[in-house]
Amino acid sequence: MYKGIAASPGIAIGKAFIYKNIEVKVEQRWVNEDEVEAELLKLNKSINLSKEQLQRIKENALEKLGEDKARIFEAHLMVLEDPVLFSEIEEKIKNEKLCAEFAVKTVIDGYIDIFSSMEDEYMRERAADIRDVGERIIKNILGIPIKSLSELNDTVIVLAKDLTPSDTAQLDKNKVLAFATDMGGRTSHTAIMARSLEIPAVVGLQEVSEKVKDGELVIVDGINGILIVNPDSDTLKNYMDKKDEYLKIKEEMKELLFLSAETVDKKRRVELSANIGTPKDVKGALENGAEGIGLYRTEFLYMDREDMPSEEEQYKAYKEVVEAMQGKPVIIRTLDIGGDKKLPYLEMPEELNPFLGFRAIRLCLDRKDLFKVQLRAILRASAHGKIRIMYPMISGIDEIRKANRVLEEAMEELKKEGVAFDENIEVGIMVEIPSAAVCADILAKEVDFFSIGTNDLIQYTLAVDRMNEKIAYLYEPFHPAIIRLIKNVIDASHREGKWTGMCGEMAGEPLAVPLLLGLGLDEFSMSATAIPFAKKIIRSFEYDEAKELAEKVLLMESAEDIRLLIKETCNKKGINL
Amino acid sequence: MYKGIAASPGIAIGKAFIYKNIEVKVEQRWVNEDEVEAELLKLNKSINLSKEQLQRIKENALEKLGEDKARIFEAHLMVLEDPVLFSEIEEKIKNEKLCAEFAVKTVIDGYIDIFSSMEDEYMRERAADIRDVGERIIKNILGIPIKSLSELNDTVIVLAKDLTPSDTAQLDKNKVLAFATDMGGRTSHTAIMARSLEIPAVVGLQEVSEKVKDGELVIVDGINGILIVNPDSDTLKNYMDKKDEYLKIKEEMKELLFLSAETVDKKRRVELSANIGTPKDVKGALENGAEGIGLYRTEFLYMDREDMPSEEEQYKAYKEVVEAMQGKPVIIRTLDIGGDKKLPYLEMPEELNPFLGFRAIRLCLDRKDLFKVQLRAILRASAHGKIRIMYPMISGIDEIRKANRVLEEAMEELKKEGVAFDENIEVGIMVEIPSAAVCADILAKEVDFFSIGTNDLIQYTLAVDRMNEKIAYLYEPFHPAIIRLIKNVIDASHREGKWTGMCGEMAGEPLAVPLLLGLGLDEFSMSATAIPFAKKIIRSFEYDEAKELAEKVLLMESAEDIRLLIKETCNKKGINL
Repeated sequence: MYKGIAASPGIAIGKAFIYKNIEVKVEQRWVNEDEVEAELLKLNKSINLSKEQLQRIKENALEKLGEDKARIFEAHLMVLEDPVLFSEIEEKIKNEKLCAEFAVKTVIDGYIDIFSSMEDEYMRERAADIRDVGERIIKNILGIPIKSLSELNDTVIVLAKDLTPSDTAQLDKNKVLAFATDMGGRTSHTAIMARSLEIPAVVGLQEVSEKVKDGELVIVDGINGILIVNPDSDTLKNYMDKKDEYLKIKEEMKELLFLSAETVDKKRRVELSANIGTPKDVKGALENGAEGIGLYRTEFLYMDREDMPSEEEQYKAYKEVVEAMQGKPVIIRTLDIGGDKKLPYLEMPEELNPFLGFRAIRLCLDRKDLFKVQLRAILRASAHGKIRIMYPMISGIDEIRKANRVLEEAMEELKKEGVAFDENIEVGIMVEIPSAAVCADILAKEVDFFSIGTNDLIQYTLAVDRMNEKIAYLYEPFHPAIIRLIKNVIDASHREGKWTGMCGEMAGEPLAVPLLLGLGLDEFSMSATAIPFAKKIIRSFEYDEAKELAEKVLLMESAEDIRLLIKETCNKKGINL
Repeated sequence: MYKGIAASPGIAIGKAFIYKNIEVKVEQRWVNEDEVEAELLKLNKSINLSKEQLQRIKENALEKLGEDKARIFEAHLMVLEDPVLFSEIEEKIKNEKLCAEFAVKTVIDGYIDIFSSMEDEYMRERAADIRDVGERIIKNILGIPIKSLSELNDTVIVLAKDLTPSDTAQLDKNKVLAFATDMGGRTSHTAIMARSLEIPAVVGLQEVSEKVKDGELVIVDGINGILIVNPDSDTLKNYMDKKDEYLKIKEEMKELLFLSAETVDKKRRVELSANIGTPKDVKGALENGAEGIGLYRTEFLYMDREDMPSEEEQYKAYKEVVEAMQGKPVIIRTLDIGGDKKLPYLEMPEELNPFLGFRAIRLCLDRKDLFKVQLRAILRASAHGKIRIMYPMISGIDEIRKANRVLEEAMEELKKEGVAFDENIEVGIMVEIPSAAVCADILAKEVDFFSIGTNDLIQYTLAVDRMNEKIAYLYEPFHPAIIRLIKNVIDASHREGKWTGMCGEMAGEPLAVPLLLGLGLDEFSMSATAIPFAKKIIRSFEYDEAKELAEKVLLMESAEDIRLLIKETCNKKGINL
C-alpha cells in the first residue's frame, strides 16, 4: 500500500500499465564555427515539427477533453513561439558554440528553475509545461520518437513517474481507468486532467512507478490518496463495495444540487461557496451549486504579462464575475502577490523565506498606488452585484486601518467623479496569520467578516512549509492548535455579530466539514467540485450532534485521535470517509 | 533623527567623522597565456603582504582589545591560509585566464554569497570577515592604500557604511566616542566591537553615512538605537541629562552583581540566566551575575568542521560548561541546525523557506543516530553538575514523545555500560512554534519546563522574517498576540506545577522585563551583559504592581499603546527607557 495525494476522486481496480517515457540524456557538446548554421537549422526544424505535433495534439484534446484543456496546448504553442526564449537559445548556439540540444536544455532548465521555485503552487506546476515543451524540442532535434498513450490495447491503470500534458491529451479515455504517478500535487496537470476526465487519480506517490510491475493488479483510491498493489481477496472485495458506493453517492450528488446546505433538523444552515481564479471558473461554481464566491483570487489578472492591468481591465473582470453570479455574493481578495510570486513590472526583493516575506497586504500598503487602482476597480464593479472586499495576510489591527484608509480615499474619488458603487460594501480579512487568529476579538470590531485561510494558517502555526517534502508530514489541519484557533476566530466574530467563513482547503475536506459545522462556521468556500459532497455531509448531521462532536474534539490532544473520532462518527451515519 | 538597531548601550554626543573606505571597482579582464604567471605572482605577493598587515593588526588588537577580539584576525589569517580557497583562485587565473583581482573577487563573492544566505545570524555576519579579507587582497594587488582609523586628530563619532573588523581593530579608543553605521545587526562586528570597547553604537541605519556631513553635531543613543543629527538645544540638553543618568546607572549595576533578582517587596524572585554559545562564554555569564545558563546553543560544536563531533568531544564541552558553572543549572539545547544552516557532513535538502523547514528536532528525529550521540554526551556530562535538556522546534506532543524515546534508549545504554548520569535529569522544550504556545496545556504534562524562544515565536506568529528589511517593521514583541501566547504558556505550566523561562531576545529587553515579571515568568535568559539592567528593573517593582501592569497590557489592542504604558510606568519609577 502506498500513500500519495488524492488528486481525483473515485475508485478504480485494474491492471497496472507502467508508462515510461524515454529519458533523454543531453550532453554538453561544442560545435565548430562552421557548424553553427547547421545547429541553428536543426533547432528551427525541430521547432516547426514540434509545432505541428502540438497542433495535432491540441485538436485531439479539443475533441476528447474540451476547450479548457486544449488551452494547455495553446500555452505550449505559445512557449514555442516565444521570441525571447528562442533568441536566448540561438544566442547560446551562436556565442557559446553549444550544440542545439544542449542550448535548448540550458535555457529551458533555467526557466524550469524559475517556475519551480515560485511559491504559488499553480505557477510551480507550470514548470511541467515548459519541461514538456523542452523535451519535445530536444527529442525532435535528436530524432527520438515521442511515446504516446494513444494506442492502449486493454483497459488499464496508468502508472508513471509523471504525466505530461501531452501524454494525458493523447490517451484513450475508454482504456484508462485511473492514474497513479510518482510526482505531482493537487494542481498538477495529471490531477487536473484526471478530474476533468472524471477518472480517479493519486499523485505524489514517490517511487511507485519503479516498484510496481506491468500487469500487476492495483487499486487506486482517489478519495483517500492510496494505491494498493496485489490486494488480497478481502481488500479486493472491500474496494469493490467502496467503488459501488462511490458511484451511488455520485449519483445522489446530482440531486443535491438545488438543495440548501442545512442540517437534517433544519436548525442550522450554512453557505457553501466556491473559490475561483478567473471569470471562466464561475460556470463550474454554479454547476456545482455554489451559493457565492468565497474567494476570488485576483492574482491571475496580474500574472503572465508585461505591465499592470489597468483599472478598466480589472473592472471588467470583476464585473464579469459578479454579473455571472446573478446577485449571489462574491468575495474579492485584494492582490496576494509578492515573495517569489514575482511580477516583471514590480520590483521586489530577493527573499530568504518568501512565505514570511513582503507580500499581499504588506506589498499593497507599500504600493498604495497600485492598491488603489484595484480597490477602485472593485468598487466600480460593486455597482453590478453583491461584492465583498477581503484583505489577505493581515497580522494586526494597524494593517486593516491602513488598508481601509486607502479604500476610503478610493470611495471619495469615485464619489467626486460621480461613479456608482456600493457604499455599504462589506470589508473583511483573511485570517491566515496566527496573530490574527489569536487576536480575532480585537480585529472583529474592525471588519464585517472573517475568512480563515487554513493553508497559510496551518503553515505558520506549525512552522511548516507544506511543499517541503521532508516535513510535509507535519502539515496537519487537525492539529489541536489549528482547531482551537479556528474556534477562537468563529467565536470572536459571533460575539461582535459578525460571521466567519473559510476559504482554505480544509473547508472542502470531507472529514473537516462536520467539525467546522459544529464549531459554528458560517460559510465554507472550496473548489467547486467539492461542494456537493460537503453538502451531503452537512445534510446528514443534526446541528446538536455536530456541536457535540466539536466539543469532544476540543478536548482531544492529538490529530490522530481527532481524525478517528470524526471518521467513526461519519461512518455511523453511513458516510464512509 | 534616524532609527537603527541598538548595538551597544550608552549615549554619546560629538562631531561626526564620516569614514569612507575607498571602493574598489574590479573589472572583468582576461590575460594572455604568457601573462598568467605574472598574475599568479601578483596574487602571491598580495597574499603575503596581506598576511603581514593582518599580523600587525592582530598584535594591535591584542594590545587594545584583548585576546578575544584578536582572534578575529586569526580567523582572517586562516582565510588567507585556506588552501582550497586559493587553489580555486589560482584555477580561475590558470584555466579561465582571468586577471588576479577579478579571480579573487569571483571566488570571494561566491563565499560571501554562501555565508550571507545562511539563516544563522552569526554565520551570516561572518560574510563580513571574508569580504574584508577579499578587499584587502584586491587592494594589495592593485596597490590601493588601505585606509585606517588609527590617526584621528579629534574625539569623534564615527559614521560609516560598515566597519570591517580591521577598521575597528585599528581605531584609537581614546578618540572614538561612538559608532553609527548603515549596515549591520546586533551580532555584526561593529556591534560586537562597540560592546567590547564599551562605547555606544547604533547599526543598521540604512543610508545615514551618505546623509550626514563631516563635522555635524550628532547624538548616538545606543540604548534606543537612535541617531540624531544637529539636535536643537532642548534635545541636546535632554540627551546630556540622559548621558549622565546612564553613567550613574552603569555604576549602580556593579553593585547589583551579587543581589538576587527579586521584587522590592520580596514577594517574587525570578532567575536571571545567560545564553551562551561556547564554554568560553561562561566567564562573561558569571561576571554579569548569571544564576544559570538558560540556553546553551550546541550548534557551534557542529559547525566549521568536516565531520560530526564525537560523543567524547561533546561530552568534554558540556562538562566544561557545567563544571565552570559550579552547581548552577545549565540548560543544553539539543542540536538546532538545518534549513540553510547546513553542515558539510550532513546531507540536507535545498529549501524554499528554510525557516519553515527541516531543522532542529525535525532533523534529529529523522537522524536518531546523531541525536542519540548528543543525548549520550549530555547525559554523561550531567554527572558533573546540574544539567537540563531542552528540545528545540517542538510543534506538538508527538515530537516530545519521540525525542524522549531516544533519550530513554540513551539512558538504558549508559546504565548497561555502567556510566554515571543524572537519572532525574529535567527535560523541557522550547516554545517557539505557535502551535506549542496554543497547546501549552497539553504539552505541559509531558515536560519539566518550558523556555519560550521569542525570536522564532514572533516570526511565526506574525509570519515575518525579521531579517527581511522590507517587512522588519512588522516584527513586534509587544504585539498583543505574542503577549497572549506568552501568558498562555506561563499559566499552562504553572497549572501543572512546572515553570516557564524565556531565552529569546525579548527576555533581555528592558521594556519587556516588568511585563514578563507581571505575567509570572520564572526564568529570564539573555545575553550576559543585559542581566544587570534587567535585575535593576525587577528590583524596582513591587510584584503586585508588575501584575497589575500585565493585566492592563492584556486588555490593550496595539503594540504602540503597550510600549507607551510600560515606558510611562518605568519612567515614574525613575527608570528611563
